[in-house]
Amino acid sequence: MSLLVVGSIGIDTIETPFGKAENVVGGSSIYISLASSYFAPPRLVGVAGDDFPKSAIELLKRKSVDMEGLEIIKGGKTFRWGGKYHLDFNVRDTLYTELNVFQSFNPKIPAAYKESEYVCLGNIDPVLQLRVLEQMTKPKLVVCDTMNFWIEGKLSELKKTLERIDVLLANDSEVKLLTKESNLFLAAKILRKMGPKILIIKKGEHGAILLTEKTTFITPAFPLESVFDPTGAGDSFAGGFIGWLAKTDDISDENLKRAVVYGSTIASFCVEKFSIDKLKELTHFEIETRYRAFRALTQFQE
Amino acid sequence: MSLLVVGSIGIDTIETPFGKAENVVGGSSIYISLASSYFAPPRLVGVAGDDFPKSAIELLKRKSVDMEGLEIIKGGKTFRWGGKYHLDFNVRDTLYTELNVFQSFNPKIPAAYKESEYVCLGNIDPVLQLRVLEQMTKPKLVVCDTMNFWIEGKLSELKKTLERIDVLLANDSEVKLLTKESNLFLAAKILRKMGPKILIIKKGEHGAILLTEKTTFITPAFPLESVFDPTGAGDSFAGGFIGWLAKTDDISDENLKRAVVYGSTIASFCVEKFSIDKLKELTHFEIETRYRAFRALTQFQE
Repeated sequence: MSLLVVGSIGIDTIETPFGKAENVVGGSSIYISLASSYFAPPRLVGVAGDDFPKSAIELLKRKSVDMEGLEIIKGGKTFRWGGKYHLDFNVRDTLYTELNVFQSFNPKIPAAYKESEYVCLGNIDPVLQLRVLEQMTKPKLVVCDTMNFWIEGKLSELKKTLERIDVLLANDSEVKLLTKESNLFLAAKILRKMGPKILIIKKGEHGAILLTEKTTFITPAFPLESVFDPTGAGDSFAGGFIGWLAKTDDISDENLKRAVVYGSTIASFCVEKFSIDKLKELTHFEIETRYRAFRALTQFQE
Repeated sequence: MSLLVVGSIGIDTIETPFGKAENVVGGSSIYISLASSYFAPPRLVGVAGDDFPKSAIELLKRKSVDMEGLEIIKGGKTFRWGGKYHLDFNVRDTLYTELNVFQSFNPKIPAAYKESEYVCLGNIDPVLQLRVLEQMTKPKLVVCDTMNFWIEGKLSELKKTLERIDVLLANDSEVKLLTKESNLFLAAKILRKMGPKILIIKKGEHGAILLTEKTTFITPAFPLESVFDPTGAGDSFAGGFIGWLAKTDDISDENLKRAVVYGSTIASFCVEKFSIDKLKELTHFEIETRYRAFRALTQFQE
């Protein structure tokens, strides 16, 4: 099935306790597209300056990412972000943010994309997320990511977007912040009444929780002895998740569970190298092997 | 199989955002014994003052806890602890600690207990934990709990105890503190070389991880819409875990997984009411129902 991905395109500089990567490819639409490309060919909508590396565009094309929706602003500079992670990867300092061409991003969905059945809205301004949905004919499933920045700064806009989506991805603190409820599962109930019938709570190293009307499904994060760079993990999760759904065109609860495990699988690869370095070189064999390893992690005989 | 439980006996005053419980029964040996009593009758070794409520002793006896190893100090006062939890249950303030008779606790194992096959050492001074083991004939499996207080204050003593145990229970930050390694799974590898062949990492609301030579098994915490009082959750886990092993007398990896789920099951009940209020009234039907619900939480079809 057709899959639309909208989000940021960036050039990141990342410091972790294990090294530094300067001016590397980043942005939610890049991570989501690459992650989903292993399942279904995504259509990307985003904006970059003409400093965005041609090699990255070529790479995405080789990965079957449709780049018709990529807007390159001549003479413009790509969104840039610098971040530093501490040994506890949950603590991250933003060193700088330069919005550049992203500041005036106004997603225009190419005519050929408007009938896309699966839509993934990366973590951008909820006003823009809504503007994307208004251009779509009748998507079958809309997945949306957000963050505390929008919850705190654009709550009423975000609430309007929430009414139009099917799946919200948020981390545990965002779910609590959005609902002002400290118990995660009560908060999830409240949130699911605000629009999205399906909620996925991302808990980083502690895994993810899928909540639908009838299903509560919890998957751990994959146990990794080396986590190199957590940048893009959430986006890779989103890409693996919606990629699997677009590939199978099955949004039953049972298949949503598989999608959550595929999302976790791709995210676990993403953090093993800097930037998209691991994500760009995955094989289907690696993905399937780790997917099955996820099963073994939680199964037990009664 | 026979099961020995050694730990503290206390009178707690607990404040949570949901209420306050004054002078209620607490202490690791009490929680562990009650939790394990649903699987195998435990033998308790601990010390209390004569202010410890008779009703609690009667309750434990009714629950088939062998109280021969309970030492009551005439005219002495029981260990007392006061704690206050915040909305984020991971944050706890200790309001006061009165060691009282616990200060001179020197566990004496009754002759009839010395051949116990399963031994659970609650979170007490590692010197005392070792002293217990020196009195035992030849236990089949020794499970040991500890905490940052001992890791920071009595590391060399704790290391000696670690060499003598089979299963260590510790939370994620304790595992990292003990090994000075920030990656949890590398830290676990190091720790398993320090003595315990089996490591269980407790992550509170994020579940638990079982690590043996061949097995990595992860279970979530049960999704609860109301967590009332987290006191004793770790001890309840320990009790459910070792209780199941003592009942089945099977320490295969496959059965260790079940034990971890039973531990998680009992812990999930413990936090639903203050003190031992929920733990004392469980039914086998409730336990089995929730154990099966744990399975459903993580299972998915390939």
